[in-house]
Amino acid sequence: MAIDYKKELENAARNMIFVHDPDLLIKMIVRMMVNKAKIAHASFFLHNKEKQGYLLTVSKGSLGKKIPIDLICIDKDDVLIRFFREHRSSFLFGREALLYSEAKSALKNVKLKQEIRQQLAHVLYQMELLEAAVCIPSYFRDELLGFLLLGKKDNGRKFIDEELDFFVALNSNVAMAIRNAQLFKELEYQLDRKHQLFVRTTVALAAAIEAKDHYTRGHTSRVTNLSIEIARRIGQENKKEFDAKFLENLYIASLLHDIGKIGVPEHILNKRSGLTVGERNRIKEHPMIGVNILKPIKELEGVLSGVRHHHERFDGLGYPDGLAGEQIPLVASIISVADSFDAMNTDRPYRLALDKQDAINEIRKLSGRQFSPQVSEVFLELCKEGKI
Amino acid sequence: MAIDYKKELENAARNMIFVHDPDLLIKMIVRMMVNKAKIAHASFFLHNKEKQGYLLTVSKGSLGKKIPIDLICIDKDDVLIRFFREHRSSFLFGREALLYSEAKSALKNVKLKQEIRQQLAHVLYQMELLEAAVCIPSYFRDELLGFLLLGKKDNGRKFIDEELDFFVALNSNVAMAIRNAQLFKELEYQLDRKHQLFVRTTVALAAAIEAKDHYTRGHTSRVTNLSIEIARRIGQENKKEFDAKFLENLYIASLLHDIGKIGVPEHILNKRSGLTVGERNRIKEHPMIGVNILKPIKELEGVLSGVRHHHERFDGLGYPDGLAGEQIPLVASIISVADSFDAMNTDRPYRLALDKQDAINEIRKLSGRQFSPQVSEVFLELCKEGKI
Repeated sequence: MAIDYKKELENAARNMIFVHDPDLLIKMIVRMMVNKAKIAHASFFLHNKEKQGYLLTVSKGSLGKKIPIDLICIDKDDVLIRFFREHRSSFLFGREALLYSEAKSALKNVKLKQEIRQQLAHVLYQMELLEAAVCIPSYFRDELLGFLLLGKKDNGRKFIDEELDFFVALNSNVAMAIRNAQLFKELEYQLDRKHQLFVRTTVALAAAIEAKDHYTRGHTSRVTNLSIEIARRIGQENKKEFDAKFLENLYIASLLHDIGKIGVPEHILNKRSGLTVGERNRIKEHPMIGVNILKPIKELEGVLSGVRHHHERFDGLGYPDGLAGEQIPLVASIISVADSFDAMNTDRPYRLALDKQDAINEIRKLSGRQFSPQVSEVFLELCKEGKI
Repeated sequence: MAIDYKKELENAARNMIFVHDPDLLIKMIVRMMVNKAKIAHASFFLHNKEKQGYLLTVSKGSLGKKIPIDLICIDKDDVLIRFFREHRSSFLFGREALLYSEAKSALKNVKLKQEIRQQLAHVLYQMELLEAAVCIPSYFRDELLGFLLLGKKDNGRKFIDEELDFFVALNSNVAMAIRNAQLFKELEYQLDRKHQLFVRTTVALAAAIEAKDHYTRGHTSRVTNLSIEIARRIGQENKKEFDAKFLENLYIASLLHDIGKIGVPEHILNKRSGLTVGERNRIKEHPMIGVNILKPIKELEGVLSGVRHHHERFDGLGYPDGLAGEQIPLVASIISVADSFDAMNTDRPYRLALDKQDAINEIRKLSGRQFSPQVSEVFLELCKEGKI
């Protein structure tokens, strides 16, 4: 009997290596088994560390309708699991697949050891519950990754050796792909954790530095949130999303925009009465001090322009470089509006906070002079919608 | 003719998916081709983005002795490459392998288009130079990842269809494994970059904070280096390497041990004359301020104890918790010695630096009182060896 679905399944199994989601991968293979090989149902139990057992990950076909996924978990010490863990390479049947009918006959063999007989009887009992005709374990090296359960063939015939051998080979490829996917997931998880570590450390240190400036508590996080809000809206209005890198740079630049204040003496930052020209100039050094602190970090190259230019003005009268109009990087123009609004809206050593509406009016008034018209327009829009 | 090495090679190809170094992977397969399939030589050209071409990655067998690896790079616009890029699925010969002898005969075919003939002639010329009997391209989706070149069979016979089909299938698995390895390498590279970003940002911000304390410039990086030096030696003497996590925690804790000083007013930190009790108490708050800054970062959990306890004393008279002896975490005991030595060895607002030998003598004198005897012993050992 020719197995005409063989090529198709082999090809699919080969491409599975690039599916890096173990669940999706198992779903694909189980669906194909049922559809192409015409089997009543198929399901896969995948090892789950946290649950210390083998969890029904996917079920397809007639059985799938009855069993809710993720509800069946076979304990790692269950006899079914121990049987496949302890008896590698199916010492009883000469292949890595256990056929229900074959196992049933084996039970009648008087030479079978009592211990094995008991285990096998339990395995058969479990297979009956799950209406399984075949059980194929998946190993990675010596580890039982999971197992595939197959129902009866749609045409009611028995599985032949060729089919079983093919399923075993296929399942072995599936096991490789699952393991590969798990390794990818693990690496991706680590990458995400490392990113969180970077962001959280930056947030914590920026907040600690900000705390030196008694009047700006919470300023950094408010400026960051507002900047991201404005950038998202600009992205939407331009009918294109900003790329992830732009938002990432804006996010980090907002967090670190005032980092250079660490280089300005505390008594100047916290002065209550009017600043002298000299003192004012010391404060104006903070963008460049920030740039100098961050410059050695080559991965933050895209962040520098936001830190450097967040006190430039649209009319060219800002600092440190006196850039004007389109010369000012968008990241810096966004931070400038967010920063100024939050500064006006909170108490400072030398004055009390403006009323929120007055602060909004100031942004409107200074659009095109201090602020980029594009950015302040978006800011005012967000205000009108009550989002600020 | 039976291909008895088939099973062996198939099995190897399946396991290749877990080799995440493309070069090693290619080395394995090329070596096996030569040894198991008994071919005079085999080599693999892998696509190399930077060099904009296909680089001879591995060569094994008689040809390998003649050609230095990494010296041959076939440009991406070379006719050989273009031929395989443009003519997918070997329209000429019905399989994904180009046989030198077959291509030679094809040239005699009068129906062959002029353009193809010219290309093919160039391909044959290249194959002659490389003494190749067979060329098998590796594709991933539509991309030419590389190609495998095989020399003649050791027994002088021609390659038969079954062999060629097998090599093509095998090479297709190799292509998958290469692509998979490249994806892993890319992820690992990103993870490494993210780690660098975290470390560099931490270093930069810690240095900026340190700069507030005029007298401690460079202190943090010296303490960090010294701490790591001491930890490595302790690891060696205990006949076991500290695990990477321990060193990582020590490294970050050393970088951030004084981060809490950000919460101590500048005029106290930089005071030249004697400190009052109240001022001294403010300074003693810095370990706990540091802990409070870092506590929200759950990934830095293992770092907190080093920051918190680096001013504990072995005799229990330190702060903030008055821990004694073995109660003090090793990380903190190491930082304590490194920190104290560097502080003694540099000028401070209230006194000039001790001479290096005097500072070393102080550590010796205070071993078992201020410092952990284990750590100070290792420190003194390193001094004796001139490593400090």
